Amino acid sequence: MLQSETKIRVRYGETDKMGYVYYGNYAQYYEVARTEFVRKYGVTYKELEERGIMLPVNSLKVKYIKPAFYDDVLTVQATINELPGIRIHFDYKVFNQNNELLNVGETTLVFVDMKTGKPVKAPEFFLDNIKQFF
Amino acid sequence: MLQSETKIRVRYGETDKMGYVYYGNYAQYYEVARTEFVRKYGVTYKELEERGIMLPVNSLKVKYIKPAFYDDVLTVQATINELPGIRIHFDYKVFNQNNELLNVGETTLVFVDMKTGKPVKAPEFFLDNIKQFF
Amino acid sequence: MLQSETKIRVRYGETDKMGYVYYGNYAQYYEVARTEFVRKYGVTYKELEERGIMLPVNSLKVKYIKPAFYDDVLTVQATINELPGIRIHFDYKVFNQNNELLNVGETTLVFVDMKTGKPVKAPEFFLDNIKQFF
Amino acid sequence: MLQSETKIRVRYGETDKMGYVYYGNYAQYYEVARTEFVRKYGVTYKELEERGIMLPVNSLKVKYIKPAFYDDVLTVQATINELPGIRIHFDYKVFNQNNELLNVGETTLVFVDMKTGKPVKAPEFFLDNIKQFF
Repeated sequence: MLQSETKIRVRYGETDKMGYVYYGNYAQYYEVARTEFVRKYGVTYKELEERGIMLPVNSLKVKYIKPAFYDDVLTVQATINELPGIRIHFDYKVFNQNNELLNVGETTLVFVDMKTGKPVKAPEFFLDNIKQFF
Repeated sequence: MLQSETKIRVRYGETDKMGYVYYGNYAQYYEVARTEFVRKYGVTYKELEERGIMLPVNSLKVKYIKPAFYDDVLTVQATINELPGIRIHFDYKVFNQNNELLNVGETTLVFVDMKTGKPVKAPEFFLDNIKQFF
Repeated sequence: MLQSETKIRVRYGETDKMGYVYYGNYAQYYEVARTEFVRKYGVTYKELEERGIMLPVNSLKVKYIKPAFYDDVLTVQATINELPGIRIHFDYKVFNQNNELLNVGETTLVFVDMKTGKPVKAPEFFLDNIKQFF
Repeated sequence: MLQSETKIRVRYGETDKMGYVYYGNYAQYYEVARTEFVRKYGVTYKELEERGIMLPVNSLKVKYIKPAFYDDVLTVQATINELPGIRIHFDYKVFNQNNELLNVGETTLVFVDMKTGKPVKAPEFFLDNIKQFF
């Protein structure tokens, strides 16, 4: 199991007329958490792309429990429970500053070779950094 | 079964550096489809809120199949298969102008009384418009 | 003078906790209006890019007069008053369904050759469609 | 003169198909900078709203010089040069991690009493924190 935690402060423009963070914006928070997760384990998402690998999202699930509000400081916990193959699966938990669980989510992303457009295995230079943890 | 179809043209700002519609933006497309669905069946979402009912999203699922690109004209099909109770469940299918299926999704929303903050049954004035179809 | 009008219905996710359309979202509405403007005069923005020309925005101004609300149907009027050279300048006016003027804006965009990254003159195939109007 | 600096890392979803941060997203970066500015000087934007004052944006200007890219770490400098009255005026400068100036901007916001909907003077509890600097 590998885990990272990322802090995100809610922006005004991310709220909607209910006063809550708009439900679609958590996809972006999850993305930020993935970016920081990957960085923590020695690679950057940007570098993956520079090496010709892109990671489109294959599936997204969110279960909303409580809303987040403007100026809340959220902690987005991202976890992978298995070594990535062609796919990499992340689980997320979002907490507010009172440690209340706001939502849980999942995404699956696919490693794709930008030239061929075909799925490929997770690149070695990425796996090397993380396989010791499994 | 009740169904509506909504056309949405992809905006430049909705794409990301991959050239695809950013995965999180479909949540907004689904929302537009829900708004038009409800309007088609005689109520507006806005009216629901004016009558003291809000509809926060409880869960979201998206399965991404193919990407959408800038200036594509998408058709977002929204369907409900059962009469809403405290919850209303929508299924979505998004097609592009070539009739390719781009993604399928689901959301569950909860009817909430704005004053009490408690879940309530779908209001009669809304059900009246749709129950004939079940 | 060349003018186009585009209708945009305000999405829920475009509002903020004040209940207004978030001030930054008008940039996207202006973009939609530009896209439709260009289409009206025989080219598509997408085609421009396919022909190796991109149009980054050089400056933006917005003067906010009244807010827009969820589900409002806005009319975005885009105007160009002079034949584009290296730059193309648009003026915008946004009205709601009651014909109230909500804001006025301006953008200047630059024609850039994607290969060289250098500014270039507006391409002939684009000018051909519009120069008759000046 | 009062100044604050805020760091913002560019999110994937904030880029567009050109690979640049979408021009409309700087409005949100400026908002984040304003929020941090106000916090630095002893109040929070949220608190202002809780005390019945809202601050809708009256005008926005952006002059784009260079693009920002995914994963860039931006510094958004926000400055006020005069004591706020009914209006508060901010100037912004956005730099990337190489200290290149990416854009400069301005916003004017108006203090509005939420109950009456009328413009009001900047509240004393806010001015008290900043007037020593003028």
